[in-house]
Amino acid sequence: MTVTAVLAGHSIVAGEPLVGAAGTAVAHDPATDEPLEPAYSLLAVDQLAHATAAAEEAFASFSALAPEPHARFLERAAENLEAAGSAIVARAMQETGLPEARLTGELARTTGQLRLFAAVVRQGDHRGVRVDPARPDRAPLPRADIRQRQVPVGPVAVFGASNFPLAFSVAGGDTASALAAGCPVVVKAHGAHPGTGELVGRAVADAVAAEGLHPGVFSLVYGPGAQVGRALVTDPAIRAVGFTGSRSGGLALVAAAAARPVPIPVYAEMSSVNPVVVLPGALDPDEGADVDALAAAYLASVTGSSGQLCTAPGILLAPRSERGDAFVDAVRRAAEAATGQTMLTAGIARAWHDGVDALGAQDGVEAAGTGTPGATRNAPAPSVFVADVATFLANPVLEAEIFGAASLVVRYSGDDELLAAVGRLEGQLTATLHLTEADAATARRLLPVLERKAGRILANGWPTGVEVGHAMVHGGPFPATSDGRTTSVGTLAIDRFLRPVAYQGLPDYLLPEPVRPDNPWRLTRRVDGVLRAAETEAAR
Amino acid sequence: MTVTAVLAGHSIVAGEPLVGAAGTAVAHDPATDEPLEPAYSLLAVDQLAHATAAAEEAFASFSALAPEPHARFLERAAENLEAAGSAIVARAMQETGLPEARLTGELARTTGQLRLFAAVVRQGDHRGVRVDPARPDRAPLPRADIRQRQVPVGPVAVFGASNFPLAFSVAGGDTASALAAGCPVVVKAHGAHPGTGELVGRAVADAVAAEGLHPGVFSLVYGPGAQVGRALVTDPAIRAVGFTGSRSGGLALVAAAAARPVPIPVYAEMSSVNPVVVLPGALDPDEGADVDALAAAYLASVTGSSGQLCTAPGILLAPRSERGDAFVDAVRRAAEAATGQTMLTAGIARAWHDGVDALGAQDGVEAAGTGTPGATRNAPAPSVFVADVATFLANPVLEAEIFGAASLVVRYSGDDELLAAVGRLEGQLTATLHLTEADAATARRLLPVLERKAGRILANGWPTGVEVGHAMVHGGPFPATSDGRTTSVGTLAIDRFLRPVAYQGLPDYLLPEPVRPDNPWRLTRRVDGVLRAAETEAAR
Repeated sequence: MTVTAVLAGHSIVAGEPLVGAAGTAVAHDPATDEPLEPAYSLLAVDQLAHATAAAEEAFASFSALAPEPHARFLERAAENLEAAGSAIVARAMQETGLPEARLTGELARTTGQLRLFAAVVRQGDHRGVRVDPARPDRAPLPRADIRQRQVPVGPVAVFGASNFPLAFSVAGGDTASALAAGCPVVVKAHGAHPGTGELVGRAVADAVAAEGLHPGVFSLVYGPGAQVGRALVTDPAIRAVGFTGSRSGGLALVAAAAARPVPIPVYAEMSSVNPVVVLPGALDPDEGADVDALAAAYLASVTGSSGQLCTAPGILLAPRSERGDAFVDAVRRAAEAATGQTMLTAGIARAWHDGVDALGAQDGVEAAGTGTPGATRNAPAPSVFVADVATFLANPVLEAEIFGAASLVVRYSGDDELLAAVGRLEGQLTATLHLTEADAATARRLLPVLERKAGRILANGWPTGVEVGHAMVHGGPFPATSDGRTTSVGTLAIDRFLRPVAYQGLPDYLLPEPVRPDNPWRLTRRVDGVLRAAETEAAR
Repeated sequence: MTVTAVLAGHSIVAGEPLVGAAGTAVAHDPATDEPLEPAYSLLAVDQLAHATAAAEEAFASFSALAPEPHARFLERAAENLEAAGSAIVARAMQETGLPEARLTGELARTTGQLRLFAAVVRQGDHRGVRVDPARPDRAPLPRADIRQRQVPVGPVAVFGASNFPLAFSVAGGDTASALAAGCPVVVKAHGAHPGTGELVGRAVADAVAAEGLHPGVFSLVYGPGAQVGRALVTDPAIRAVGFTGSRSGGLALVAAAAARPVPIPVYAEMSSVNPVVVLPGALDPDEGADVDALAAAYLASVTGSSGQLCTAPGILLAPRSERGDAFVDAVRRAAEAATGQTMLTAGIARAWHDGVDALGAQDGVEAAGTGTPGATRNAPAPSVFVADVATFLANPVLEAEIFGAASLVVRYSGDDELLAAVGRLEGQLTATLHLTEADAATARRLLPVLERKAGRILANGWPTGVEVGHAMVHGGPFPATSDGRTTSVGTLAIDRFLRPVAYQGLPDYLLPEPVRPDNPWRLTRRVDGVLRAAETEAAR
């Protein structure tokens, strides 16, 4: 049986297929531009309420779930994804043009992410329990017992990305962190990989059923993009939104959410050129520099996954010096050795061509190296350009993100020019320094500027390849994201879907488990301002 | 020397008086409607940049300040406020009509709040340090060293409230938490208590100078309200806003902040009717109920500070029963025994009259008890009304906040009517239950509903009198605040002015102190997901 044969082609709403009433849509294999069966039925706006009402209905029980069954559910979803792994990877290859190794790795990242959040749920620190015990004898007024915990915000809408059909899509970081927070999730399926979405959605819905949870905990809806997206964000049952995609798409959702009678937060990860600064020491052979290796690593970061990574370096600042010239020569050779890989969709490839044509046509911008187109459709030749800081500062086109394998080298003369260029950058997901200790003085001037510009700062590495851990920040000031106070990757992402509630003077029989004096969930709690590992109040 | 004689009547910008170019304004004693000298010069919009540029300039050094001098600064501000305490209280009495005991208590709360944040700064948990150590041997790919910390967002604009001239104003909770986070602050002075503002502003500015900090750390600006407020919120140097005041004022700032080229968060605490639910057990004499005491406590909460508290109970739900009738009779007696107190301004008193007249004129709303006007100007008679649930559900006027000593008793018959009324409420700062264990079943149905409606849930107490501690939440879903993910009172308020930054593979010589391996600030850190009390990595 082929993968195609098992696909139903419909939304999955509260565990059941729902046939859409607004026509159908079909995805295309970007390597051939051929349509991929089956066609997907699209929900009409008034059908969405089935999913959102079920999510709202599921909230009461799911938000109060004990840690162990809650964690088990996330683990079961990971297991189901693994069981369907070969079908998922096969279909994702067809739908995205991404190579098998990349998708296999991405599946592992997706299941690893679910398991990491299962561990977070078991540990429970995200519940943020704070206890200020009563002080009946305090003068002039006694203090009541006050307890705080973080509660889930309510049902969450998730919009997946085209470039990560697994890790930032149906069961990706937004979904995993929202489910871990205790929020039911309604995912809007991405039109470019509907079959992958269905296989993943089924794995999650099956986990909901297998663990005996309310089926409204998870739904996956297919619909005509902007229309159903807007309807989802403005549905009163939805209380927060996670989005990964374009700046225009993200800003449209932000505006829709702000215009609601009750506005809700939108966590949109949008656009970033991820500046890389090469300081002089990093090109110094006496310090062990190897410009060929550096240039090859740069091109690998620019061209990996056909350049379609949120953290791909779109701008590299290199010194104007003899060694800088040698580095730019090495970049040229590395670019010329690169071969195009299939992009995600024909539309994305067209947008890449438009962006590259526009950049190349700017005064003062020259080609610094062009590779070879790939053998498939939609696999344009990787392209690197070069300009100087004055040109960069004078023309905002040079800072525009080009989604795909393209990058701009900006040549700077001295620290002041470098700081001027960095100071003009918009908010970014990442900023990278290549340096040695000889560059420390310059780096110390740059660091405070970069901290205000970016969510993650790297040294002597490349920003692509985002680690899923506790310390990761995949976020950053606007317009990298719509809300620079958070991250969409790593365990801190769970905080996006929580809000604090305080309980004052509640009798024990009414207190929710996390804040009960007998601490049945063995949570670390902040007592009178001091963190204390799990203990009951009687034991203190 | 009188208090008036020491007032300069100008903005304090980066430690220096700045004479405004946009005319002057004078406050009035609300007890007499007489003008209060001096007139205050108002900044023209283009003068604001002096304050915001100084704040931006101060950011680099202030945001990197070590814990001890940082905490000392906050303590020094508290000491300066105490030294000026009698002048501050005397002027605040004139400007607000609030009684001495209330203002003396509020000053203690304000200084206590600064000291609490000094303790938070010394402890350092708000820096949220996370360390995922490198795993060079991990397969298939090594893991880089990744470290995360919370950094201050940048300069913050604060808009104080009329009803707390100290604790929610120039050196109030927003200012204290922003300064504790490491953000320079520009306060827009409230026009109703300009002299109090100047005395407090001077105490803070003197602390900045005495501790040798950059003078741009704090400025206090007087200006024509909406105009300067809007200019402040749209100034590119400002990165977050704290506001306490009216719904219309808060929403105007939210809209202005969202329309910036780089939008910023606005934490606006706006409006709340703070529902109180009296369950049948709380009226049962066999359970120890004393309806007269309960009614007197209700009226005390309604009328305290002339009813001008964000958490005053504007709605009380009481059962329709004989005991409920007895309680409403007791409320009538308590209301009739109450005397009006001076309101904050003549305008606020007019708005109170308009609100009370509108409420009293609604079909199905009856007076349940009216007190006596006070002897001063602007001291209207406390007023309580009564209606049934059907009337309440049919007419949104009954849920509108009336700022001042007025409240509405809504009579309910049975749990379903009660849940219908509670379910219809907007977002609230607080929700209160009066109950005994006999009411547990009903309370358990109510609690999950209230958790989604309110930031703080109380039992058998009154919502007025907000404790400043670690577990407090003074916030809540829209429209109680513009951002229900936070609190504006208590130590968690500091999180509003922080954002995470990750450092990947940075050499030790570049790492900021909080994330250095030798942990010089002795911070508790989350290492590979597990909280660890201060230790260095070498020691592990």
